[in-house]
Amino acid sequence: MKKYLLFIAMLPLAAMSQSAEDAAVIRKISDEILRNGKAYDLLYQLTKQIGGRLSGSPQFAKAVTWGENAMRNNGADNVFLQECMIPHWVRGGNDKAFIIEVDKNKTSRALDVLALGNSLGKGTVTGQVLAVQDFEELERRKDEVKGKIVYYNNGFNPTNIKPFVSYGEAGIYRRSGPSRAAKYGAVGVMIRSLTESTANDPHTGAMVYNDSFPKIPAVAVGPRDADELWLLSRKSTINMALFTNGHFLPDTIGHNVIAELKGTEFPEQYITIGGHLDSWDVNEGAHDDGTGVVHTIEIMRALKAIGYKPKHTLRFVLFANEENGLRGGTKYAAEAKAKNEKHIFALESDAGGFTPRGFSLEVNKTQMAKIQGWLPLLNPYGTFELTNDGGGADVGPLNRTFNIPVGELIPDPQRYFDLHHARSDVFEKVNKRELLLGAVNMAALIYLIDKYGI
Amino acid sequence: MKKYLLFIAMLPLAAMSQSAEDAAVIRKISDEILRNGKAYDLLYQLTKQIGGRLSGSPQFAKAVTWGENAMRNNGADNVFLQECMIPHWVRGGNDKAFIIEVDKNKTSRALDVLALGNSLGKGTVTGQVLAVQDFEELERRKDEVKGKIVYYNNGFNPTNIKPFVSYGEAGIYRRSGPSRAAKYGAVGVMIRSLTESTANDPHTGAMVYNDSFPKIPAVAVGPRDADELWLLSRKSTINMALFTNGHFLPDTIGHNVIAELKGTEFPEQYITIGGHLDSWDVNEGAHDDGTGVVHTIEIMRALKAIGYKPKHTLRFVLFANEENGLRGGTKYAAEAKAKNEKHIFALESDAGGFTPRGFSLEVNKTQMAKIQGWLPLLNPYGTFELTNDGGGADVGPLNRTFNIPVGELIPDPQRYFDLHHARSDVFEKVNKRELLLGAVNMAALIYLIDKYGI
Repeated sequence: MKKYLLFIAMLPLAAMSQSAEDAAVIRKISDEILRNGKAYDLLYQLTKQIGGRLSGSPQFAKAVTWGENAMRNNGADNVFLQECMIPHWVRGGNDKAFIIEVDKNKTSRALDVLALGNSLGKGTVTGQVLAVQDFEELERRKDEVKGKIVYYNNGFNPTNIKPFVSYGEAGIYRRSGPSRAAKYGAVGVMIRSLTESTANDPHTGAMVYNDSFPKIPAVAVGPRDADELWLLSRKSTINMALFTNGHFLPDTIGHNVIAELKGTEFPEQYITIGGHLDSWDVNEGAHDDGTGVVHTIEIMRALKAIGYKPKHTLRFVLFANEENGLRGGTKYAAEAKAKNEKHIFALESDAGGFTPRGFSLEVNKTQMAKIQGWLPLLNPYGTFELTNDGGGADVGPLNRTFNIPVGELIPDPQRYFDLHHARSDVFEKVNKRELLLGAVNMAALIYLIDKYGI
Repeated sequence: MKKYLLFIAMLPLAAMSQSAEDAAVIRKISDEILRNGKAYDLLYQLTKQIGGRLSGSPQFAKAVTWGENAMRNNGADNVFLQECMIPHWVRGGNDKAFIIEVDKNKTSRALDVLALGNSLGKGTVTGQVLAVQDFEELERRKDEVKGKIVYYNNGFNPTNIKPFVSYGEAGIYRRSGPSRAAKYGAVGVMIRSLTESTANDPHTGAMVYNDSFPKIPAVAVGPRDADELWLLSRKSTINMALFTNGHFLPDTIGHNVIAELKGTEFPEQYITIGGHLDSWDVNEGAHDDGTGVVHTIEIMRALKAIGYKPKHTLRFVLFANEENGLRGGTKYAAEAKAKNEKHIFALESDAGGFTPRGFSLEVNKTQMAKIQGWLPLLNPYGTFELTNDGGGADVGPLNRTFNIPVGELIPDPQRYFDLHHARSDVFEKVNKRELLLGAVNMAALIYLIDKYGI
């Protein structure tokens, strides 16, 4: 206690009152959001009245109009659309998979699957299953691959405390697994869904073909079906049929939705806050990334509602096409560069609407020390954790173009991959208070960066 | 970085290797729980095969037998039952409430209600509604109370970041509201459920009559119905009917279930880990407190599985009757005193099975400093927050009897009061990884206290 008093006594008086003032402003932001927050109702509109909104779909276009109106109705000084070309992949029907033969006995056991995003399919493919644990086993058994459907059993490592680490490790099977099997003559690929969920929903997500090899169909299978398939494959010869119809239509026009609160001291310097407006087609895109969208709008609404006048211009951006192309984030950075804009920081919400735990940043040591100094102001609202693991996907191009610090909200990550890219990512999985607290913590950090710079 | 190196250089070598050894043991505990944890399957049995298990009910007796077997099957050195008399309150049927008249026009609008635990009812009570915001308004309008049904609109303060603070503030309406209205002649009481949930489920929970006043029926109403009732009461005269049948049967025999891992150095010194086995009757008692029960068993299982030999005797206790009497926790401390046992620490899990954030403690400054020194070991598993807000209800008697430090796991609290004492507290609301991580963090703290004392 003595030490603490000494420390206080040594602080310049100005610093003390400044910190008290900051605490009061953050409290005001928090009270405004927790009392009058509209994020939950906006999320209801986006998820239930529009629903899944994959790039190029009519729902995505509807979401752009909705976003524009939501921005206008919630305090924006100005709103504009930023055009960008976006890919238009369509699933083309209901994906299906059946075990059709076990040890040469005919059967018909349906497996719950979803075609991977960007994958191509033209109806039915059949073949014997080659079930491998990982790429290492694939390489070892490459001579057996020809004409077969390769199943990758690689899943999340349950001992990782942070599921995003597991996603980082296992994600390569979704992105590259199809072409790595096609290289050795596989006719189709099935991956274990990227999840540790106890439910059987399959999880889609983007894959990328290597143009050197045949573009074979690729699906993700639900984790319970994956367990059964793997066990069966240990003792039996399995034949399988995959039905997929994924294909690309011509690129189409999409938009980033951008709103601003004009800066009073440095109107030509920008701080960006954003989430992505597109989602996969199989769900409501609630946690991915409806919550990021409504965080973005809510922060703007609350800052305006309490009469906050930002020093810098705050840009609130609903990005197009994060899921299967990143064209929105790329366009935003390219336009900023073309217009010679000065950007100082960008903050994203694209890890779900769960209770906030902190921020993942891409900053240098001086900047990290500065943000760490603000922790006592953020702790009461849930922020305890600051990592240097990078910002989100959509602020990445801004970071690489301008070499500016970026960040992403870290919500509690444990439930995220239960619903990520699965049918279960729906409004009902979002908790109102958890959602609002995400906006509180992001708004507090934005306030501090706007006031003190970074 | 320079500073950091200097700091490391100054550490005695022994301390460094000790910390590395501790990190390795905690990693081993964590891996064991996350790979092989049985908590989720045990919770399924307790919630789905037994279900709600209020003190005195056949389900509670069944849960005792289940708990005894679960302890034996998961590594206990010995298991015993500790008898204690427990109250036997029964709901006596389906609680109901209807608005039967609005401005003298007959109507029949059902409100979703649950009688408060320990409340008494003998069928129907009717009366005009006196809707008040809080006790202050009740006092101001005490002359209007006679013959009426008092409705308390007091709810959670949404600007509190921690819902347990809101529960602490609003809980007095559930506990004391009925008698405070009965004092002025009320014939019945309805409270707004203690929740901020967006669903309409009513939330029961214990109340206590003041013996000086009539023991009038008391119910909690769902929050959406509460909103409508309050609005209607602002402009209309409302008559209401309550139907409740709560009553007490004679006290009956209950049991604490106690298992031990015997201490190797100080077998006569005890560290207690526990949760409560009873629950309310209207749900499955999943988060309250099935998760605490299976945390307790899981910690024992994991420590045994990795071959850990505790210095002190670790007691794993499934307490009886936390919800409406605290007879189990009281008995445990009384027996410990009668037998002159030496207890050094007790840790409870009774705040849900959500992702752990830290521990709430009742410790002195020296003890707090010691635990804070362990934070770098606990951070990787989710523990960031240490508060001095006290341990849980069941370890309270131990704390007061022996003046020993106690604690309680702090899981993420935001969803807890959505389901606390409501029908929605079911197995499906528990996430497997979140549940297991609670056991990891508790086991890690127990390991450190067992090794270093407190």
